Amino acid sequence: MNLILLYQDDFIDDTGVVRLQGRRLKHVLDVHRAAAGDGLCVGVMNGRIGIGKVVCLDQSVLEMEVRLERQPPAALPMTLVLALPRPKVLRRVLRSVSAMGVKRIFLLNSFRVEKSYWQSPFLRPEAMHEQLVLGLEQARDTVLPEVQLRPLFKPFAEDELPALIAGTYPLVAHPISATPCPRGIDRATTLAIGPEGGFLPYEIEKLAAAGFTVVHAGERILSVETAVPALIARLF
Amino acid sequence: MNLILLYQDDFIDDTGVVRLQGRRLKHVLDVHRAAAGDGLCVGVMNGRIGIGKVVCLDQSVLEMEVRLERQPPAALPMTLVLALPRPKVLRRVLRSVSAMGVKRIFLLNSFRVEKSYWQSPFLRPEAMHEQLVLGLEQARDTVLPEVQLRPLFKPFAEDELPALIAGTYPLVAHPISATPCPRGIDRATTLAIGPEGGFLPYEIEKLAAAGFTVVHAGERILSVETAVPALIARLF
Repeated sequence: MNLILLYQDDFIDDTGVVRLQGRRLKHVLDVHRAAAGDGLCVGVMNGRIGIGKVVCLDQSVLEMEVRLERQPPAALPMTLVLALPRPKVLRRVLRSVSAMGVKRIFLLNSFRVEKSYWQSPFLRPEAMHEQLVLGLEQARDTVLPEVQLRPLFKPFAEDELPALIAGTYPLVAHPISATPCPRGIDRATTLAIGPEGGFLPYEIEKLAAAGFTVVHAGERILSVETAVPALIARLF
Repeated sequence: MNLILLYQDDFIDDTGVVRLQGRRLKHVLDVHRAAAGDGLCVGVMNGRIGIGKVVCLDQSVLEMEVRLERQPPAALPMTLVLALPRPKVLRRVLRSVSAMGVKRIFLLNSFRVEKSYWQSPFLRPEAMHEQLVLGLEQARDTVLPEVQLRPLFKPFAEDELPALIAGTYPLVAHPISATPCPRGIDRATTLAIGPEGGFLPYEIEKLAAAGFTVVHAGERILSVETAVPALIARLF
């Protein structure tokens, strides 16, 4: 937790004092080992970042005087379209892309996505919210990514994708491609990444028909949790 | 398992027939769902890659006729010097860097590495070997990375690093740096990555004194398991 994420409810008055308990208090006690007078990095959910000066800290409560001085770091200009990974991997990928600054994520069905994944409790909004917040706290960001579920591939690819990718550079990562994934681009991008085992040829055709360029990132096949940060870091 | 890794012991004669049981047999039955006549991607540990034609497969044994036709994918020209992460993260990082093609890894102590991490059973050679092999099987590689433990920072930095980085571009990733991490370089590199919380200023000074350039990859602080693939993908 490199930034303590604050909510409007945490402010106890109009003078910028917050009162925290629970997970954030425990973290400040156990990890930061802060004391009165210390300044901690804080940020308001979907808002500005600054310093919280500890005015009171004991086992039951943390109070800070908050000064918000700057904007959160810039978001990546990209939308991630990700075939739903298995639930434990999903948790780590959500943390990781939230930390990297991705703000719009579609979790998509694909032939090689096991049906049971769609029933996972880790897909509940509060479970995903928790991982996204952990990513923001890690990276010192405040802007919550938005995650949307698309359990039907074909209507998403045919009806929704064309509008979604308009004005962006749409790329789908696929090992069987002659085109290397570009590097260090400075433009709005839609990046699609398939499941372990890859998208089916039929799915790749659908994405290509919607306008996607099929790219590879070398002959090595990476697991989803390695491929996602690697591809994002290569692009931006 | 996109490649079935074979050992010399698996060959039952001089005609290139292997006999497998255990984990690899189970994977071919449960995941590949292969049948006699199918060709599976195989490779010999530290050797060539090719096709294994299934000649016999049942619940107790898999036999394949192996033809080895090509070299494994090129290794990354880099040495990774990584502050020892917590054990569960270490496992994933070893898999991930093995899949990406890193062949030499030093696990280093640092002030912010918890002492207990050095006692973890995940640091035993056979436990690390298991994760490295999983990475090779994922990426269709055969060349086992070498991992060395360096539980003392200072002698490593002072006595060993200068020779280690000779002829390479030595980079240490640190959020407090004015120099952005380079992209898409095509030269031998030594990449040092600190623990969660970062290297101490004293440690950064030691690395800089040994010849390292201190670089950052943006203002976001990434967890080790995200930072490692992201930095490697940015470099190569």
